[in-house]
Amino acid sequence: MKTILLICDGMADRSCKLLGGATPLEIARAKSFDTIAEKGECGIMDPIAPGVIPGSDTSHLAIFGYNPYEYYSGRGAYEALGAGIALKKGDVAFRCNFATVNDDDIIIDRRAGRISGEDAKELAKALNEIDLSSFTDAKVEFYHTVEHRGVLVLRGKNLSPYVSDIDIHKTGVRIPDAKPIKNTEEAKRTAEILNEYISRARVILEDHEINIKRKSKGLLPANIILPRGAGILPKVKSFKEKYGLKAVAIAGGTLYKGIAKALGFDIIEVEGATGTVNTNLDGKMEATIKALDKYDFVFLHIKGCDSASHDKNIKLKISMIRRIGAAFEYVLKNVDIDQTYLIITSDHTTPVEIGEHRGDPVPITIYGPDVRTDSVKYFDEKSCAKGGLNRIRGLDIMPIITNYMGISKIFGE
Amino acid sequence: MKTILLICDGMADRSCKLLGGATPLEIARAKSFDTIAEKGECGIMDPIAPGVIPGSDTSHLAIFGYNPYEYYSGRGAYEALGAGIALKKGDVAFRCNFATVNDDDIIIDRRAGRISGEDAKELAKALNEIDLSSFTDAKVEFYHTVEHRGVLVLRGKNLSPYVSDIDIHKTGVRIPDAKPIKNTEEAKRTAEILNEYISRARVILEDHEINIKRKSKGLLPANIILPRGAGILPKVKSFKEKYGLKAVAIAGGTLYKGIAKALGFDIIEVEGATGTVNTNLDGKMEATIKALDKYDFVFLHIKGCDSASHDKNIKLKISMIRRIGAAFEYVLKNVDIDQTYLIITSDHTTPVEIGEHRGDPVPITIYGPDVRTDSVKYFDEKSCAKGGLNRIRGLDIMPIITNYMGISKIFGE
Repeated sequence: MKTILLICDGMADRSCKLLGGATPLEIARAKSFDTIAEKGECGIMDPIAPGVIPGSDTSHLAIFGYNPYEYYSGRGAYEALGAGIALKKGDVAFRCNFATVNDDDIIIDRRAGRISGEDAKELAKALNEIDLSSFTDAKVEFYHTVEHRGVLVLRGKNLSPYVSDIDIHKTGVRIPDAKPIKNTEEAKRTAEILNEYISRARVILEDHEINIKRKSKGLLPANIILPRGAGILPKVKSFKEKYGLKAVAIAGGTLYKGIAKALGFDIIEVEGATGTVNTNLDGKMEATIKALDKYDFVFLHIKGCDSASHDKNIKLKISMIRRIGAAFEYVLKNVDIDQTYLIITSDHTTPVEIGEHRGDPVPITIYGPDVRTDSVKYFDEKSCAKGGLNRIRGLDIMPIITNYMGISKIFGE
Repeated sequence: MKTILLICDGMADRSCKLLGGATPLEIARAKSFDTIAEKGECGIMDPIAPGVIPGSDTSHLAIFGYNPYEYYSGRGAYEALGAGIALKKGDVAFRCNFATVNDDDIIIDRRAGRISGEDAKELAKALNEIDLSSFTDAKVEFYHTVEHRGVLVLRGKNLSPYVSDIDIHKTGVRIPDAKPIKNTEEAKRTAEILNEYISRARVILEDHEINIKRKSKGLLPANIILPRGAGILPKVKSFKEKYGLKAVAIAGGTLYKGIAKALGFDIIEVEGATGTVNTNLDGKMEATIKALDKYDFVFLHIKGCDSASHDKNIKLKISMIRRIGAAFEYVLKNVDIDQTYLIITSDHTTPVEIGEHRGDPVPITIYGPDVRTDSVKYFDEKSCAKGGLNRIRGLDIMPIITNYMGISKIFGE
């Protein structure tokens, strides 16, 4: 038995005023999703617990069966792993944005006017020439990833992930200092190194020729980097060890690849899989079917609905749902359903009229051999709430699916 | 965003033989409740956990987000706080009844023939003249509250709440001794003080002129007090600290005011709010709407359904539900529903044909901005079981409502 787990990031929503009280899923009516809901068993799922607002990282950990209250070790580590950086024990990694500050160090734009990858790559080179050896024995490495995004890694002894974010998701405020959030020497030292690095970066970036050019063209300069989400390599049993399943991830976003890597998944890179609304959906679906030859468990992640929700773009969210649904027809047509379980769900609710994650449950449907069907015919938040699965939690999914796959052990006799 | 939480104590019920298998809520059909169920999202809630029989105290703690297995510190403390007694760290408080025993110290009536407040008040004065100073350095204070009810407070060092009840909710038995229920010096000492006090009280009350008069009128004498529910001041983070919400309680019953006070709620006293079936419902509804000017979270408690259930009075229970529903129309008409969440639920099931609390789930409905509607049209136990909330627990309510109010923090990124 095999499993395909499709997670449509941020797809779940609330009753939308703009849609007369319907949700985007109710309006979009993706046919392949409804088919699976009708043939399968439906329910709602609290990724963490009722009302608790999940991050994409904590939610995915829970869905893969790793209690985030025990195993979550900060977003930065997953970003680093997802970017292909060899993170080692003791390293502390941060997700970073290139951003714009004015002469008073007030943050003007958290994405430096959505700087191009080429410009950002050049600036990254300059950042890696910063020499902190007179200040600390820790090594600092900066990696550019996509567009305005990057990863900062501190390597050395006695470092700590317990430092506050410099990117606090706000503009109009002065660049905050990183502060220790645990009263340890390691946290203090890490915050000091980070602050020193940021102030050196500030000087180097301000006068960099790329930024001089950008300003002359009327573009915002990327004159600061804003780290957040300090994280360390999580200590976990691999997915293979835990379930005996050979698993692979098909995802565009760095974070999702990173989480999968941290759990020991292989990664299939699909050309044009960008983790944006313009991703290569057909390519990801084809890769999913192909992956079944070699893998027991295929995790297919699609980010677009979440991005549309964060941008409060309701039309884009609905069309993204429709496009995913249309592309997923390929999987439905080509999967051997007697040998495969299909799960469709979302990692959290991102109400498009709010533009942020919320703690409402998400719809889920499971289709495959012998699954108890129910009377639900549509894949959306309200229909699935009437389903046979009732209300489950993210941590329930792996026990449920390994039970269906026939690979769980009995507890007792 | 604001929240009104209406808890109708003991309103939930089972299928009643006398109602041809219907529940009192199904027969009563309170219109305002049904309106909210239809417009909102419904479900059933286990106040503690499936099948666990909640006390009113443990259930309310859970609903406010305080795990009663961790924070419950005995009913006596809440009774004391609710009665306006300044309870201090180290004090042990007991809920008490004035009761009647015969010459063989057999308990005849647990409420001394439902003694009047005036008589009880006089007897309380005599109790406070008891001088235990030759026996112990602990101080003992008795406070009369309402009708046959009172609160006993032991103050001093090395006292313990781990002593058994003297009121074991039974008649026809000899007054039991209080016994230590933990093997500690403090518990032994506390039981000894309590037993000494009770035997002195027995003597003083027997010959008190109030009781002589009562006997001459053929009334039962209040010749004993029966303490129960030893409790200490709970150590909790206040509701304000926990959620950042300014909260107020509108309740007649001492216990409910006490729980609210223990969590740092303000209390609004409404004239005629008695905590009985004759309470001033309209006054409580008006106070609720008015409280929204100043408070974020209004806890409205109505006791009547529970009292009717304990008295096995099915007609009274149904009419009480109707009266609450009719009075609640005022809230529905006057609330700004774009800025307010309404929650209607019960703290436990009190089957009116049994007359005691039971561990069945209770119906719940939540109505307010963006809530996902479901197909439930009626507020009762069976209809709500088909609702979009599915089955939740008491401890889920605060995470769910703070998520809706937009004041929860994300876990992860």
